[in-house]
Amino acid sequence: MNATSEICSACKRREVFFHRPCSGQRLCKKCFVESIEAKVRATIAKYDMLSFNERVAVAVSGGKDSVSLLHILAKMERARSKASFTAVTVDEGINDYRGEALEIAAAECRKLCVPHHVVSFKRLFGFTLDDIVKRKRQIGDCKLTACAYCGILRRRALNVAAREVGADKIATAHTLDDEAQTILMNIFRGDLGRLAKEKPVTDEVHPKLVRKIKPFCEIPEKESALYAYLKKVKFQASPCPYASEALRNDFRSMLNRMEEKHSGTMFTVFNSLERLRPALKEVGENRHFEECVECGEPSSGGLCKVCELLKQVR
Amino acid sequence: MNATSEICSACKRREVFFHRPCSGQRLCKKCFVESIEAKVRATIAKYDMLSFNERVAVAVSGGKDSVSLLHILAKMERARSKASFTAVTVDEGINDYRGEALEIAAAECRKLCVPHHVVSFKRLFGFTLDDIVKRKRQIGDCKLTACAYCGILRRRALNVAAREVGADKIATAHTLDDEAQTILMNIFRGDLGRLAKEKPVTDEVHPKLVRKIKPFCEIPEKESALYAYLKKVKFQASPCPYASEALRNDFRSMLNRMEEKHSGTMFTVFNSLERLRPALKEVGENRHFEECVECGEPSSGGLCKVCELLKQVR
Repeated sequence: MNATSEICSACKRREVFFHRPCSGQRLCKKCFVESIEAKVRATIAKYDMLSFNERVAVAVSGGKDSVSLLHILAKMERARSKASFTAVTVDEGINDYRGEALEIAAAECRKLCVPHHVVSFKRLFGFTLDDIVKRKRQIGDCKLTACAYCGILRRRALNVAAREVGADKIATAHTLDDEAQTILMNIFRGDLGRLAKEKPVTDEVHPKLVRKIKPFCEIPEKESALYAYLKKVKFQASPCPYASEALRNDFRSMLNRMEEKHSGTMFTVFNSLERLRPALKEVGENRHFEECVECGEPSSGGLCKVCELLKQVR
Repeated sequence: MNATSEICSACKRREVFFHRPCSGQRLCKKCFVESIEAKVRATIAKYDMLSFNERVAVAVSGGKDSVSLLHILAKMERARSKASFTAVTVDEGINDYRGEALEIAAAECRKLCVPHHVVSFKRLFGFTLDDIVKRKRQIGDCKLTACAYCGILRRRALNVAAREVGADKIATAHTLDDEAQTILMNIFRGDLGRLAKEKPVTDEVHPKLVRKIKPFCEIPEKESALYAYLKKVKFQASPCPYASEALRNDFRSMLNRMEEKHSGTMFTVFNSLERLRPALKEVGENRHFEECVECGEPSSGGLCKVCELLKQVR
């Protein structure tokens, strides 16, 4: 540390590593890491995400956000948190991609002494994502993108995996960036039902649908990446070969540009929606869930989306 | 018209001039003009903008949107509309700019046989906008942009002008683009109070505050421009020398890009908010208006913003 270097605004001892523009904090590496962990604990408390003795399935894809989340939750458990955690990973069956992520997830779980449960599309649905995309292309059905199929099946797989490990909640690593993007996408699509539904803790709508919590919903993606880097967390950096969410990418770059110009933008968008939340309740349609006539899983009516999709593929 | 040219989907006779992507309509010039006029009448009816025998002050800046609006409203009056219209123009006192617009506004009013009333910043406040910007720069006060001062004073001037002509309502030519931009800006700023307030017909909050209506709120700016072009409406095309609303420009270009990719985007954003409207009422703070201790005009408390601003300038 040389004489001109700036000193951390928290510990007043170590050299500044990170500047958080919206709060004005200038933190050293250690205080930055602690600030992220404290923020996650505060978010969990603020939204009342966990109850005493709850079992939580942590959705770990192997990417930086989910592995960082696992690290923080495992640390909380070691410090006698009120909940216990199991990592769950969905193997969609994507050649030359998912294998590496699975290995990383498994290795991180061993290191953290967290039980790890894997569910595969192949076991649950009889097809890998690669199979489905190939079949869809063969029959010339290109209505939806691979991401759209994958989204439907992965949501189901995660829910089944959570039930298999006896979880009361599923924790996902959606960041503040993801949340702000989703909010804008739903406004731009005019999908107020989804706008109401996507929140830090989902409602209990059906006994077979495990509730979701998002402990990273107030953590910017940039800070989650920095946390992973500082904690030397191993994660898969290569993007999914099917990734092409054009619309989300538009919102991502737009929000990033705005955030650069006016720091705090993403949090303001997120917060605007939180303040609208009580009102949204009344606007959003009351979602009613039955059980799918074919598989018995929760469905908004008749045949569930998963069975509908699989029927087309078969 | 040659053999290969396409035929208007409305009249089935004339050649197509305009394609409206979100509705699929392909219209000839005449049917396009009629579609805009019909849409404005429909918007006025949908939001219950006008009552029997009401006097309306039409805010005419001399730009394409406001002159087009005046044309359509004047035509409605000739066809025995239930309301009567007077044009009002605010002369902010901007050298080498406002003069041309004033002449255009006056000429169009004469042509349409609509009474025209002009109020100037100079007469109402003792200063032109040029004076104020100069004074502000002299005293080194650059907190707000010229647009911010102008916005405060123009709103007041318009309200005074409307009362001077005995108007029950003020019609402004805000387009669908303006509305969608404003919605996003308020979400990005977290200003839910404004989000609730800005609507096609403003609420009655104080007897001295003339209610506003926006008959163009569902007309895309592009179509308003095309209408002006086809009706050979004269308007001022040069932008205001002070114009620099950086934030709004960001939203404008973002929305334009989205609209190009997904036609109907702006309308969806506008409509999302309209559907949220009933719920927003409860979230928005209850605005309470008193009278300014100095000028007696409506104010949210003590000294109004106009008097505050003028005090700094004096």
